[in-house]
Amino acid sequence: MTKGIRKFTIAGVQLGPILKETKKERTVERLVSLLEKAAESNASLAVFPELALTSFFPRWFIESQENVDSYFEKAKKFKIGFVLGYAELTDQGNHFNTCILVNDKGEIVHKYRKCHLPGFDEPTEGIEFQQLEKRYFEYGDLGFPAYRSDPEWIDATIGMLICNDRRWPEAWRAYALQGMDLCLNGYNTAANGTSLFGSKENKELRQYHSDLSTTANAYFNSCFAVSVAKCGVEDGQGLIGGSIIVDPNGKVIAQAKTEDDELLIAEIDLEDTINGKQKMFDFSRHRRPELYSRLVDQKGSVETDYVN
Amino acid sequence: MTKGIRKFTIAGVQLGPILKETKKERTVERLVSLLEKAAESNASLAVFPELALTSFFPRWFIESQENVDSYFEKAKKFKIGFVLGYAELTDQGNHFNTCILVNDKGEIVHKYRKCHLPGFDEPTEGIEFQQLEKRYFEYGDLGFPAYRSDPEWIDATIGMLICNDRRWPEAWRAYALQGMDLCLNGYNTAANGTSLFGSKENKELRQYHSDLSTTANAYFNSCFAVSVAKCGVEDGQGLIGGSIIVDPNGKVIAQAKTEDDELLIAEIDLEDTINGKQKMFDFSRHRRPELYSRLVDQKGSVETDYVN
Repeated sequence: MTKGIRKFTIAGVQLGPILKETKKERTVERLVSLLEKAAESNASLAVFPELALTSFFPRWFIESQENVDSYFEKAKKFKIGFVLGYAELTDQGNHFNTCILVNDKGEIVHKYRKCHLPGFDEPTEGIEFQQLEKRYFEYGDLGFPAYRSDPEWIDATIGMLICNDRRWPEAWRAYALQGMDLCLNGYNTAANGTSLFGSKENKELRQYHSDLSTTANAYFNSCFAVSVAKCGVEDGQGLIGGSIIVDPNGKVIAQAKTEDDELLIAEIDLEDTINGKQKMFDFSRHRRPELYSRLVDQKGSVETDYVN
Repeated sequence: MTKGIRKFTIAGVQLGPILKETKKERTVERLVSLLEKAAESNASLAVFPELALTSFFPRWFIESQENVDSYFEKAKKFKIGFVLGYAELTDQGNHFNTCILVNDKGEIVHKYRKCHLPGFDEPTEGIEFQQLEKRYFEYGDLGFPAYRSDPEWIDATIGMLICNDRRWPEAWRAYALQGMDLCLNGYNTAANGTSLFGSKENKELRQYHSDLSTTANAYFNSCFAVSVAKCGVEDGQGLIGGSIIVDPNGKVIAQAKTEDDELLIAEIDLEDTINGKQKMFDFSRHRRPELYSRLVDQKGSVETDYVN
């Protein structure tokens, strides 16, 4: 099989806060301008965060393309693909936390719906900021189908994840078992929180967990990864930034310096994923799936007691 | 259920090189002396590395306990448990890369046999140091059964891994699905290597990969982890050190400073694993096992072609 474009420039588009009172049209203009800048940097693909069109709280859902047409026009004009997260409302009235992959011809070629919804479906008493994703969204129903892109655009096997998905090794592995060499993730992650027992979780710890999830899983699956944030203080709640682009060694090769709109640019060569895929993480030689049955036979943890 | 001893001191025992010419008796004396030191530090459990009784190349296999009886006597005398890695030869003539867990009464209470054997079963031409684990050992056949210890000694749910196992999230998860709150791992990891394409892999990168595997999986599974090395230059090949003890946030709480015999001591409280297990990584609320079937249905990666 002849290889196509394996070496190309990729852009991670970090977004500063999008406030409740901001008009959607204004937000779209702002994002399209960042897409143009990514194209000026010669990027073949630009990755936008989760729920990029609104504040994290999903105040409005996208029913049709009409408000985002300008994106697709620009993608085609500049021959740059993009990933965009948004709150999806289907014709059947279902709500998903979704992202789409648009190719360099301005066509939607792939869709992913967030599978690992964190938080609760009922409000928790006595906490300042609720995490009610399980209430607002339904569980993603598309699984983890990797997307093999047009090799004349970029010759990649792409997996898409949304926010909390990046903390679940099962999701990365499901994609890697299809040959994923590029994993794209957007997130909105609260900068502070409270543990079950009342102690505070600070921004540094939350950033560390975010980075660790991307770097480790990129290494375990020998792929490049782009994790981009919507960040800063949005409607009174702080969100971590720290967007990163990571290589198959799990090393950060580009990192955001601000908590605002910021482009990360990296030239990547997908051939750099081959060493890991054929050596340390040659699944066909080293995995032991016959020993992993608990991973699918159980959902929760089943504990055993000590037997004297 | 009444809780037992959840807060206790744990020791990671890093070992410097064990040379080919060293007599086994001398090595056992050396290790027993380290076990004594761990007991003097008030540790309830001491974790020794993979193949702790010999150089990494398995020149001899342990057929019976006779040479290591002094260990068990000391464990009982000082009421300290230990984990010890060794090359096991069974009555049936099978060879495994094994570790045992011995309790504070000097009894073997659990055994693990390395499941993820790296390397090759035939020598590779043109490389200086062969990695032939698949030739010398058979694949571990015991799976990943977690061990629930006597709560009056330590009230822990223990998973044991050996070396390369730590890089496989499936192994950690199989244990975590049984409630693991303490993961014990010993390793022998070459300090240098050559990629498939001839570029050098240096010590810093290999140490980074080792640390990343332990810290990330401890976080993803909300458990404490002890990863201890046999290190230094052994029979002409350098091995990384960098033994660590890690908390359920994936943060390093104790770290080796030398590449020689060295004790790491940490006081840990297994109650600190509860926040992660009941919140971010509450498997029963957040996992999607119905979407993970590839993890057990496939061993190797199955790639798809681009379809225009």
